[in-house]
Amino acid sequence: MTSSMTSTNPGVVQAIIWRGEQLDLLDQRRLPHETRYLHCASAAEVADAIHAMVVRGAPAIGIAAAWGMVLAARAGADLAAAEKVLADSRPTAVNLAWALARMRALAQQTPAQDLAAVLAAEAQRIQDEDLAQNHRMAEFGAALLPAGARVLTHCNTGALATAGHGTALGVIRTAHAQGKLAQVYAGETRPWLQGARLTAWELQQEQIPVKLLVDGAAASLMARGLIDWVIIGADRIAANGDTVNKIGSYALACAAQINRIPLMVVAPSGTFDLHCADGAAIPIEDRGPAEICSLNGQPIAAQGTQTVNPVFDVTPATMIEALVCELGVARNPDRARVAQLLGGRSPE
Amino acid sequence: MTSSMTSTNPGVVQAIIWRGEQLDLLDQRRLPHETRYLHCASAAEVADAIHAMVVRGAPAIGIAAAWGMVLAARAGADLAAAEKVLADSRPTAVNLAWALARMRALAQQTPAQDLAAVLAAEAQRIQDEDLAQNHRMAEFGAALLPAGARVLTHCNTGALATAGHGTALGVIRTAHAQGKLAQVYAGETRPWLQGARLTAWELQQEQIPVKLLVDGAAASLMARGLIDWVIIGADRIAANGDTVNKIGSYALACAAQINRIPLMVVAPSGTFDLHCADGAAIPIEDRGPAEICSLNGQPIAAQGTQTVNPVFDVTPATMIEALVCELGVARNPDRARVAQLLGGRSPE
Repeated sequence: MTSSMTSTNPGVVQAIIWRGEQLDLLDQRRLPHETRYLHCASAAEVADAIHAMVVRGAPAIGIAAAWGMVLAARAGADLAAAEKVLADSRPTAVNLAWALARMRALAQQTPAQDLAAVLAAEAQRIQDEDLAQNHRMAEFGAALLPAGARVLTHCNTGALATAGHGTALGVIRTAHAQGKLAQVYAGETRPWLQGARLTAWELQQEQIPVKLLVDGAAASLMARGLIDWVIIGADRIAANGDTVNKIGSYALACAAQINRIPLMVVAPSGTFDLHCADGAAIPIEDRGPAEICSLNGQPIAAQGTQTVNPVFDVTPATMIEALVCELGVARNPDRARVAQLLGGRSPE
Repeated sequence: MTSSMTSTNPGVVQAIIWRGEQLDLLDQRRLPHETRYLHCASAAEVADAIHAMVVRGAPAIGIAAAWGMVLAARAGADLAAAEKVLADSRPTAVNLAWALARMRALAQQTPAQDLAAVLAAEAQRIQDEDLAQNHRMAEFGAALLPAGARVLTHCNTGALATAGHGTALGVIRTAHAQGKLAQVYAGETRPWLQGARLTAWELQQEQIPVKLLVDGAAASLMARGLIDWVIIGADRIAANGDTVNKIGSYALACAAQINRIPLMVVAPSGTFDLHCADGAAIPIEDRGPAEICSLNGQPIAAQGTQTVNPVFDVTPATMIEALVCELGVARNPDRARVAQLLGGRSPE
């Protein structure tokens, strides 16, 4: 992989740019201090970038993986091997598996000589669809908010985590454009600080009023009456509506329930995994001690400190007021309401 | 203020050492990487050290402030002015006001020529009493734990936060000595990382099994059945048992309540402020953006990011299973049970 600081469009954040022969990924590890793109020329390089969190956010890693398959097809590489290395790059988000399954299904019915072009068109479709879906779910979600809404969000679910606009942050952007948003509170989201480094930065660039807080402070803001809605994204949603999202989401759900503040989960329909009956069936990635014990290469805990570092948690469907995707809204979601939302879709 | 790396007793952590003509404070901002003592020669220097968090932890800042008054008396300085600068150094913890009130009461009945010696004896008594109280409350608290206890704690409430042993961490130390402790989980405690830098380090030095986690992960560990008790300290406790403690404590209380895990608050009786009927009356310090937006002098958020940084929160008494001080235990505390615990003590 090589890298450069060029961007096609310096006015708009673009996390994923297809260049025809390589995939450029905005290196989100360096934000907000530096805007540098990493150039990936193979599926393995894309997988490495996903694992290293150059690109992160459930929809974005699905899109990046689809482009990884295009790179494999262009190189005439073994597509099954490319799919495996990409699928293994992060275990929790289902969008990755969903995008790869879609590419595989198309590849299996495509003649070899057309493979690269057909897969490139499909990857572009996945990316374009994601953006269109973001705008639709943002309308659905924003409609639930009161005038002068004060919302709390977690992690980064914006343009950097998707093809653009965002999921939870898409709702916030749309609500702001509609003039009904008073204040965003963004949790910094330890250990990787997506809230501090990405969300606060994205919102500041568009002059959307945002205040950053440590994750542990969110509950106290709720108790002080400062929050109307908690709005989060999702990395995988089970058939009953149980939601796996960035670590700390379930903590927010607990505080929201006790303070009677509604919780909204916003994610494209590709985030639903109907193979999982409930959240207990979903694997949770533990990323080890490095992200807790050091920051920017500097130690912040004693050497040899043991850690427990699950980077996702499970919020039970019973704690969710509204589950929003591009197809609509499920209030108080359960298995039946999720099935209804998805139009009777069954496991693939 | 000057500083040095000497320590009287390298085997034991001593946060506060009186030298007869100066007060040595272990600079906790540099831990765990460096063990350096700051030498304070005046009340103003002690106040600066408290404000800058060279020394922190409610009992420890009370003790340091008492020694600050001794330095003022030795210099023949205006004691009322010294008391004011010390009292203003941190607004939330009541131990500071409590220790200063005790020193003032004694000073008012002491002839000028005896002042320095009498106040030094009193400061030493405050420090010695704190250690003795820690051991007593640790016995009360440890008796509540089951065999093989897995406990979650927050912030640092150990030898570094007190005259030694600790409050919540004192319970943990005593439970470990009694062989009934299986595992400690320590929240890193953003923004200042007392858990990562101080608690994990203190426990490791005594080979007490500890795993560090980000604050947002605590709720998910509770949901996974890994936690038997949550044990925290307190910076101020109202007459009805409402407890002000490090930011994130109330978030733990919310998750504990939803997961039916008991919460123990451990603090000396000097932490009770009977002038405050409930938690709403207690001032909460906001320490501004620096501690959230940078770490070790490195920026971790974009320049100009706005923050909300309350460094304490209020846990309602109704969420507390056991309130433990050196006088005993109040189960399900309320105004009557707090009064009973304190032996009918009324506001001073």
